[in-house]
Amino acid sequence: MKKTVNKELVSIEANAVAYLTAFNRADVAGILATYADDGVLMAPGMPTVVGKDELAMIYPAVFDQVGFAMTYEIKEVVQISIDWAFVRSATKGIETNKATGVAIPSEYQELFLLRKSATGAWQTARYSTSKISPTV
Amino acid sequence: MKKTVNKELVSIEANAVAYLTAFNRADVAGILATYADDGVLMAPGMPTVVGKDELAMIYPAVFDQVGFAMTYEIKEVVQISIDWAFVRSATKGIETNKATGVAIPSEYQELFLLRKSATGAWQTARYSTSKISPTV
Repeated sequence: MKKTVNKELVSIEANAVAYLTAFNRADVAGILATYADDGVLMAPGMPTVVGKDELAMIYPAVFDQVGFAMTYEIKEVVQISIDWAFVRSATKGIETNKATGVAIPSEYQELFLLRKSATGAWQTARYSTSKISPTV
Repeated sequence: MKKTVNKELVSIEANAVAYLTAFNRADVAGILATYADDGVLMAPGMPTVVGKDELAMIYPAVFDQVGFAMTYEIKEVVQISIDWAFVRSATKGIETNKATGVAIPSEYQELFLLRKSATGAWQTARYSTSKISPTV
């Protein structure tokens, strides 16, 4: 039983890490692969993004405007039921405004709520990220 | 069974509403009552706040700086297991910088991850809020 749980935790964390690393290389397909079809994104500076069709539109728009060079730290990986889990993380690095070329240090904190799919894959069902800094 | 589930949903939503309304009246005790002892807050402009002792320090500091007059909309209330649930909401209104008196419209989006306590009370275990606007 313990072994099963640990194996699940590895898969759960791997989904969040896949997202964070795909985000960092502006890999939209890689990002979308981590979401459930009904996935929801709550991110700074935009209304809530609901469902994979909307997600597929917003990420290219973000990467057109900003380049990210971030490192991540996984803070928590918790399986809360047979088919739900959450991951909490923090990211920091440099983001570059592609219009102006201005690069600034920034920090974020993330909460992933994951659901196990019918095929056994852990996918992000709800995701919220907020900006620690800069505050303005 | 359906009745039981619905009753749980009422309690789950009530916890999130209790938080949002307590926040709006700067009621720190009311806010803290909605959190689990190990509750975590992820909010714009500050590092992750972990546990009730830290939560008890951060909210007074926030309300010393900013006054909020917000309305909320509950977007989702989902029970994901016997003792876990999530609520997604959006808030908008006016926030006033108490140092300068400047009042601006603002919008946020919230994700509450709730856990049922041993006594049967739904409490916020993890909470993430991000700012939709203003972006600067």
